[in-house]
Amino acid sequence: MCAALKPVLYGYFRSSCSWRVRIAFALKGIEYDQFPVNLIKDGGQQLTDQYRKINPMQQVPAVCIDGITISQSLAIIQYIEETRPSGPHLLPQDPKKRAQVRVICDLITSGIQPLQNLHVLQKVGEGKAEWAKYFIERGFQALEQILVQSAGQYCVGDEISMADICLVPQVYNAARFKVDMTPFPTIKKINDTLLEVEAFKASHPSCQPDTPPDLQS
Amino acid sequence: MCAALKPVLYGYFRSSCSWRVRIAFALKGIEYDQFPVNLIKDGGQQLTDQYRKINPMQQVPAVCIDGITISQSLAIIQYIEETRPSGPHLLPQDPKKRAQVRVICDLITSGIQPLQNLHVLQKVGEGKAEWAKYFIERGFQALEQILVQSAGQYCVGDEISMADICLVPQVYNAARFKVDMTPFPTIKKINDTLLEVEAFKASHPSCQPDTPPDLQS
Repeated sequence: MCAALKPVLYGYFRSSCSWRVRIAFALKGIEYDQFPVNLIKDGGQQLTDQYRKINPMQQVPAVCIDGITISQSLAIIQYIEETRPSGPHLLPQDPKKRAQVRVICDLITSGIQPLQNLHVLQKVGEGKAEWAKYFIERGFQALEQILVQSAGQYCVGDEISMADICLVPQVYNAARFKVDMTPFPTIKKINDTLLEVEAFKASHPSCQPDTPPDLQS
Repeated sequence: MCAALKPVLYGYFRSSCSWRVRIAFALKGIEYDQFPVNLIKDGGQQLTDQYRKINPMQQVPAVCIDGITISQSLAIIQYIEETRPSGPHLLPQDPKKRAQVRVICDLITSGIQPLQNLHVLQKVGEGKAEWAKYFIERGFQALEQILVQSAGQYCVGDEISMADICLVPQVYNAARFKVDMTPFPTIKKINDTLLEVEAFKASHPSCQPDTPPDLQS
């Protein structure tokens, strides 16, 4: 099932977790194919029996690479980092800096994103936009404090890392939920800088194979 | 502020994320001090200004180690793994097996635990027990499928790893929310095996310095 020559990304243009993986591939200069999984159409293509075999959690992303299938964006990105030494490192070499990067990643991937993803908001029902905004703002308040200490040009010093890979898609989600970025100047500044980097541009939700024409830019 | 000779764990006896870190210290044979942060008393000691300086996210655990403070349990555990080569490895050496371990960790730490933690359930309000049960069962359905493929005696083969460190505290939470484990025989079997391992016993919520007398065993 997973025997393609190039890695295959099962993702969705607007999924922030899929975007993380696209950024990692782009930073590393790795070619890959995309297999779009439309989270809305037909009640959600991630819920089919066929896709459940790829990712039992019925979420995107999943990646077929080197004969195995990996779900969970950070597991995918760290596998890429550990098996593709070419290109820039996605984690610093110093253990203390690696810890700083991972704190930021985990704050976003376990402290913010899961609370505002599609399935959870469907469960919340009425008031879901306020719910999402609340948890993003709560996370950003902590993140802003952390970044004031750790940031240089990027989240941790002046090298792009996995923390930046997590940051930009989360700020994109914040915009969808109309979060005012004024109280988070450090997050905003780093995000603006990163959006000018080619790997972040090429992987942007606005220009993927499955981006609907009216959302393309 | 963070100049102790031994690592200091800011945690709470019943917090599953704190338990993860206690297991890691125990497996590695690392002595540490505990600084209890009572998540219930005084409206939650994690919400004080004093604690926010330790962890801006106002959650446990946080660890003061080697002159730095690290929050987020997986970041802490990976820092321990990378800086304390003594004792058993918490991640396999083979990249594909490492990916399997991380998929399981991330499924639990971003796909289950954040949806049933104290703060989120306070926001859910009425119906919070059903909410927690729903998300734990949903995650366990996926996890059971994954473990059927990956498990030996433990989550990934026959070596204890970070995946096991995440599994046992999540099964403990499942019991609190009265999740029926019958549909999850693989999870149950691995959990039962791990509960006999000394590092999991010594770190159990029932025997920590801040465990109330009526919950001690």
